[in-house]
Amino acid sequence: MPWTTGKRSYLDPIHQDIILDRSKPSDELIIQLIDTPEFQRLRRIQQLGVSSFTFQGAEGSRFTHSVGVMHLASRLTDMLAEDNPVAAEIKPVIVAAALLHDVGHGPYSHVTEKIVGYNHEDWSGKLITGDTTINQILSSFSPDLPNQVASVLNKSFQPHWVSHIVSSQLDCDRFDYLLRDSYMTGTTYGAFALQRILSSLEIDQSADQIVVSGEKGLIAVEDYLFARYSMYAQVYYHKKNIAARALLMKLVKRAGELGSKICFMDESTQKWLLGSELTVNDYLELDDVQMTYHIKRWIKEADPILSDLAARFLHRRLFKASRLPCSDETAVASIHQAARAAVAKIGLDPDYYVCVETTGIRPYDYYRPTSSSEQTSIMVRTNGSTVQELSTLSPMVQALVKGNFETVWLICPAEAQSAISSLSELASSQ
Amino acid sequence: MPWTTGKRSYLDPIHQDIILDRSKPSDELIIQLIDTPEFQRLRRIQQLGVSSFTFQGAEGSRFTHSVGVMHLASRLTDMLAEDNPVAAEIKPVIVAAALLHDVGHGPYSHVTEKIVGYNHEDWSGKLITGDTTINQILSSFSPDLPNQVASVLNKSFQPHWVSHIVSSQLDCDRFDYLLRDSYMTGTTYGAFALQRILSSLEIDQSADQIVVSGEKGLIAVEDYLFARYSMYAQVYYHKKNIAARALLMKLVKRAGELGSKICFMDESTQKWLLGSELTVNDYLELDDVQMTYHIKRWIKEADPILSDLAARFLHRRLFKASRLPCSDETAVASIHQAARAAVAKIGLDPDYYVCVETTGIRPYDYYRPTSSSEQTSIMVRTNGSTVQELSTLSPMVQALVKGNFETVWLICPAEAQSAISSLSELASSQ
Amino acid sequence: MPWTTGKRSYLDPIHQDIILDRSKPSDELIIQLIDTPEFQRLRRIQQLGVSSFTFQGAEGSRFTHSVGVMHLASRLTDMLAEDNPVAAEIKPVIVAAALLHDVGHGPYSHVTEKIVGYNHEDWSGKLITGDTTINQILSSFSPDLPNQVASVLNKSFQPHWVSHIVSSQLDCDRFDYLLRDSYMTGTTYGAFALQRILSSLEIDQSADQIVVSGEKGLIAVEDYLFARYSMYAQVYYHKKNIAARALLMKLVKRAGELGSKICFMDESTQKWLLGSELTVNDYLELDDVQMTYHIKRWIKEADPILSDLAARFLHRRLFKASRLPCSDETAVASIHQAARAAVAKIGLDPDYYVCVETTGIRPYDYYRPTSSSEQTSIMVRTNGSTVQELSTLSPMVQALVKGNFETVWLICPAEAQSAISSLSELASSQ
Amino acid sequence: MPWTTGKRSYLDPIHQDIILDRSKPSDELIIQLIDTPEFQRLRRIQQLGVSSFTFQGAEGSRFTHSVGVMHLASRLTDMLAEDNPVAAEIKPVIVAAALLHDVGHGPYSHVTEKIVGYNHEDWSGKLITGDTTINQILSSFSPDLPNQVASVLNKSFQPHWVSHIVSSQLDCDRFDYLLRDSYMTGTTYGAFALQRILSSLEIDQSADQIVVSGEKGLIAVEDYLFARYSMYAQVYYHKKNIAARALLMKLVKRAGELGSKICFMDESTQKWLLGSELTVNDYLELDDVQMTYHIKRWIKEADPILSDLAARFLHRRLFKASRLPCSDETAVASIHQAARAAVAKIGLDPDYYVCVETTGIRPYDYYRPTSSSEQTSIMVRTNGSTVQELSTLSPMVQALVKGNFETVWLICPAEAQSAISSLSELASSQ
Repeated sequence: MPWTTGKRSYLDPIHQDIILDRSKPSDELIIQLIDTPEFQRLRRIQQLGVSSFTFQGAEGSRFTHSVGVMHLASRLTDMLAEDNPVAAEIKPVIVAAALLHDVGHGPYSHVTEKIVGYNHEDWSGKLITGDTTINQILSSFSPDLPNQVASVLNKSFQPHWVSHIVSSQLDCDRFDYLLRDSYMTGTTYGAFALQRILSSLEIDQSADQIVVSGEKGLIAVEDYLFARYSMYAQVYYHKKNIAARALLMKLVKRAGELGSKICFMDESTQKWLLGSELTVNDYLELDDVQMTYHIKRWIKEADPILSDLAARFLHRRLFKASRLPCSDETAVASIHQAARAAVAKIGLDPDYYVCVETTGIRPYDYYRPTSSSEQTSIMVRTNGSTVQELSTLSPMVQALVKGNFETVWLICPAEAQSAISSLSELASSQ
Repeated sequence: MPWTTGKRSYLDPIHQDIILDRSKPSDELIIQLIDTPEFQRLRRIQQLGVSSFTFQGAEGSRFTHSVGVMHLASRLTDMLAEDNPVAAEIKPVIVAAALLHDVGHGPYSHVTEKIVGYNHEDWSGKLITGDTTINQILSSFSPDLPNQVASVLNKSFQPHWVSHIVSSQLDCDRFDYLLRDSYMTGTTYGAFALQRILSSLEIDQSADQIVVSGEKGLIAVEDYLFARYSMYAQVYYHKKNIAARALLMKLVKRAGELGSKICFMDESTQKWLLGSELTVNDYLELDDVQMTYHIKRWIKEADPILSDLAARFLHRRLFKASRLPCSDETAVASIHQAARAAVAKIGLDPDYYVCVETTGIRPYDYYRPTSSSEQTSIMVRTNGSTVQELSTLSPMVQALVKGNFETVWLICPAEAQSAISSLSELASSQ
Repeated sequence: MPWTTGKRSYLDPIHQDIILDRSKPSDELIIQLIDTPEFQRLRRIQQLGVSSFTFQGAEGSRFTHSVGVMHLASRLTDMLAEDNPVAAEIKPVIVAAALLHDVGHGPYSHVTEKIVGYNHEDWSGKLITGDTTINQILSSFSPDLPNQVASVLNKSFQPHWVSHIVSSQLDCDRFDYLLRDSYMTGTTYGAFALQRILSSLEIDQSADQIVVSGEKGLIAVEDYLFARYSMYAQVYYHKKNIAARALLMKLVKRAGELGSKICFMDESTQKWLLGSELTVNDYLELDDVQMTYHIKRWIKEADPILSDLAARFLHRRLFKASRLPCSDETAVASIHQAARAAVAKIGLDPDYYVCVETTGIRPYDYYRPTSSSEQTSIMVRTNGSTVQELSTLSPMVQALVKGNFETVWLICPAEAQSAISSLSELASSQ
Repeated sequence: MPWTTGKRSYLDPIHQDIILDRSKPSDELIIQLIDTPEFQRLRRIQQLGVSSFTFQGAEGSRFTHSVGVMHLASRLTDMLAEDNPVAAEIKPVIVAAALLHDVGHGPYSHVTEKIVGYNHEDWSGKLITGDTTINQILSSFSPDLPNQVASVLNKSFQPHWVSHIVSSQLDCDRFDYLLRDSYMTGTTYGAFALQRILSSLEIDQSADQIVVSGEKGLIAVEDYLFARYSMYAQVYYHKKNIAARALLMKLVKRAGELGSKICFMDESTQKWLLGSELTVNDYLELDDVQMTYHIKRWIKEADPILSDLAARFLHRRLFKASRLPCSDETAVASIHQAARAAVAKIGLDPDYYVCVETTGIRPYDYYRPTSSSEQTSIMVRTNGSTVQELSTLSPMVQALVKGNFETVWLICPAEAQSAISSLSELASSQ
């Protein structure tokens, strides 16, 4: 009997009806977790941070994405369980980890992380194992569950393949966000054959990993990696996104340095920006709404830099990013220096009005023992028993591994851009 | 030469590339209007208010919608101009009105309008003709433009057909929001044959109105009205939406009554909630971010009702709405009375924890001289010269006009619901 | 292990991967039935007959549609079986009936049926119970299966609800063809919320019928019926379709009357057209390829009418259909008579160059004991126990039942149309 | 005034309404060309040949595709004409060439071309410049038009960029078929950002070529080439397609060798299969319907090989294709030899029941003076004046150029496959 009180359904634009059945323990667990204040807070943190300045449709929250990841992890686990009954047993751990993988994100996610100096994954762990409603719910389901969920997220859970579902180069997180960001921004680039990939995934018990099976799976994974590449090239590293992030970073940096000189700053924001110890409850008060409200108020602050940066951000008068034609350190440093001088000349503080950022698309990389990269390679089972690393099978994927997709950006206000003649020559026109 | 500096493009999930060409005066006007702080403020007002509590994808803003309406009005005007060159001349008025039709919306739009007692259309007029950047830009384009744009929005502009494009039962506003809300919520119900409708619209110069032409147009309009009907039935009047709105109304009402007894309330919010005179600048400070931030802070206020309602709203512990099996006034009043008594019994204040709301779907109605309805009928040109009102041609549309789609809802907290035995019997189960 | 030899998958544009698992008896049965020459023949019979003359994308075959219906019936049966284990037991009967429901169609399906005088449902029965590979496969699965499958198709199977899945006003046949025809023609009108409807269907054991459950189901069914209405109005009864069918009927009629005077006519075609007794093997030779090849050859026949009609058909110089402004018998007869006279005047045989056809859209009707209609009503369970006929619950559906959607068409060649002045006045211009 | 008699519209599932306006000369020309028997014949030639055996939705005709290519060429020409008025002048040549580019295709297109030994492009030329209705229509539009259209198709037209629109590595033909084949088969792989590519194309007058402009264009072209790559890997070179084509080739080969010993073969088919000189009228009688009808009849022929191959084809009992693990000539030859022996051992004629085929995906290649390849490179304008060959700018595209995507297939009946033990080991399982 559908639609009766025993079921809860979420209508999702990507996955259509996501139905949770209270008679199934892992679904009941998910319903309770969704209903916590900690998880509802994700409604107030945008999935794509400042990207909606550039892609107007990109206004979705991490709440919506997290429910999507949980749904995909649930579907995938059910499919894997057909051949591996153990997957059904671990399901509560998997879906809870999938749902909660982003729960520790702060205001404007990745942008503030870098400047303020915290790590959203650490906070996810604290919210799962600390004094929270989430912890109570997980614990009453099973006393070990909080630690198990946290260990999936930090990749220490046994068996290892469980982490692959939630966090790897072929995980439900990426599956959901590529499709969702593609749908919300209106680009076609992020679309890929989700169903085909899910159908082709298997647990390789001997090596304790998730593998892609068969030729159809291989083609589908190539397609997925190409989608990832294109989304970075077109959306995530769009020059206006780079510029918007830089503006926000400078603004947050200024606020942090002014500290108590700022008239309006509430308690949790102050602790956070000034680097004081935050309790779990302090942290939970932080979100995009809080940050944006502060930025609105800061327009009226006395400090001219803070006030100016806040107004630029709120009214979307963003900085401009130019792609530098070089990437070697010395050349970049000298351009940076010239830009700082030029900006100073028109009366702006170079510490807040110029910066250099490097982006590098890496849609896929395989595990290299000698490198700092801790990527888990994507493995493909080409027939009965042989399992090979993906790039050895696909010239397309090799290109993605070897290609140099690095870009160095110089970012400053539009009026400074025109003031710097050497830069205007250097900058690519696009 | 595409993508050069003379063009600005918005990638929209519904309409794909919306390209504005600075070499065209009306496009340059639109670019300048979009860049005003007044219009950028719409990024902070959700299109569907509290609906994202029910339809998780419904997180888009009025900014995105407004750009979409402008785009449709621009396309339609270009199409109409093929046979009516006058449309090209009036285009700046049309697209500016389309872009700005929602600029006066306040926090959580329609929900607060009712409780706080203001009218977003009045505010749109003030922002267009008052002391704003928008007014400056319109005026420097042409001194009459602010008044012309305002008069399109209040339907006094001559020729009349111009207002039909922006605001009628077959207007670009509805075209955009049906498609967009359908896309964002993930339902298929709001989809209709946009291109077919646009192609079938004509200016009927003699009667100064927009008419639908031909049989293909008629079928497409039936389809559009059915989409509208379905979206009301499934999305806009979803019982959880009704419940979420009622909760927010009660919360705002409480805040308004407590007034200065509340510790945290910033200046513009206070003026607005307490009914003081608001300047244009005061009004522009209001948005969903401001409102939501206040609600967060109010959880810590001393007043138990305000604190409780704020926490319910923020953490999405909504009221429950039940469809009443009757609609005659006396019966409804007696159920309402019983519900108030039941709620009081479990210690809740009935003024804030129970209410009755009536919703009535009206996907289309024709003009009736004797009624208060000021609808402009949809007119169809069936052949060379004859123009007829739509419902006379379509049994489907007649059903939409005559059907009784009214529902009376009783709304209260879940815990009260179970306390009211008579109500639990009455409420439809769904 | 997906994609291994135990599974067969069909990639369908509507339903995506349709996977048949040889380890499941009913899937193995379906694979064997699909592989019969009798079923493969459906690749050579177009789903929409002559409609691809009007909607260029409408080139799909009954093979593709039949596999789609089987897939939907399989999904629906699995969903019903969750609450009714008996559905799982009957599944082979259901899916075989769904797969084979169109197996008896002849060349150009409905068009020739009327003229040649046969019934595709009778032939479906003969192919299932007669001396065919299909019969052998069904029989070796279970001796009763051929008769069971045939009885589902002629609605005598017990329990009755099984026939509802395959053939009723809310059946998998309609579900598939509305979605498919909509997709292939490129219209949006046929889209509806399939998943929502499937989820809302239940077996009502007491009344032995399929019912729609709950409010979400009701909205989804309204949407489905409106899609059906729109597809008739826009696609199935498009005036060019009416004209193309009439031309083909006249052509087939002429061939049947000329009989052995025609130089090229193969044996099975001859038996069929001249009304001789056909064996099952004779019938299986008939398909669109055979018919079209004959039409090509007939262009060179001596008979000027046959030759002319064949060339018109092959080169798509169709007749024209005009909507008559009246429908009462006398008026129509007098117009018909005038048209015949006018056609004769320009040297064409009125028996082959004029006709009158009536079409009547009936997207839904409920059971009426007094009428010849043998429709099974759509029943809705609004709550725990009450089941009501759909139109009593929905003003929209009432309009579909009561509306008069009948049209009378006059069809003749374009050159005749202009010759008939009175008709050119009468005909609606569209 | 839309939908009036001056316009003709085609509803296309890929491009939606394709509207031809009789008041525009080039549209009137297209309408007349579409209405010729020569062009209508394309309704009887499938776009994807035997692929519908593997991808059931792939049942569309070259008629539908050709109209789509014409539509894209028309849109692109209009866009180019904004900056290059000359494009508007040449438009009739461009759209006629786009419409007619496939008009010379024979039965089952590429499959029979190889065996029977003719060239569809030669026939396109003959149908355009020979004694046909098409030629009459083109000539009465302008005496030079037939030769101009033919020269666009054989790439000798001046200016050169005109041919690029219709036939190059970035042409409207590929644009249409990738999107259409993707849509019809139901795979997502062929989708790409058509609008983005069209917007980024420019005429480079100095080098007389079409170039892609800007970074957005570059990303869109990468995406398009990846779509092309994926469609080859998944659809066009699907192992079942390879097997179906091989079966049809053997069947046609046998028929050609038996020649007049076959009882049923009509005149034009006989001339064609036996290599006699064909008139334009003979050739126009050939189509898939004719071929398929012959195959049906040949099942009853006395020759056991012809009869068997015909039955296999009609009832879709295809050969099986296995990917060989090697590609060097000697190894392949020795496997081929072994397979022939094995097939002979089970009583089948190895000349008709075994073959080896090589496929090589080449989604893009640049011009190499030393090679036989006559590809026109894709050129990109990265800023104001510099134009570079695509692969020098994109690591992704370099991979497509350098990658080895060659596969050698061994094809034989299923029963033979199991008889050849060494082969069953060699064959990849997929």
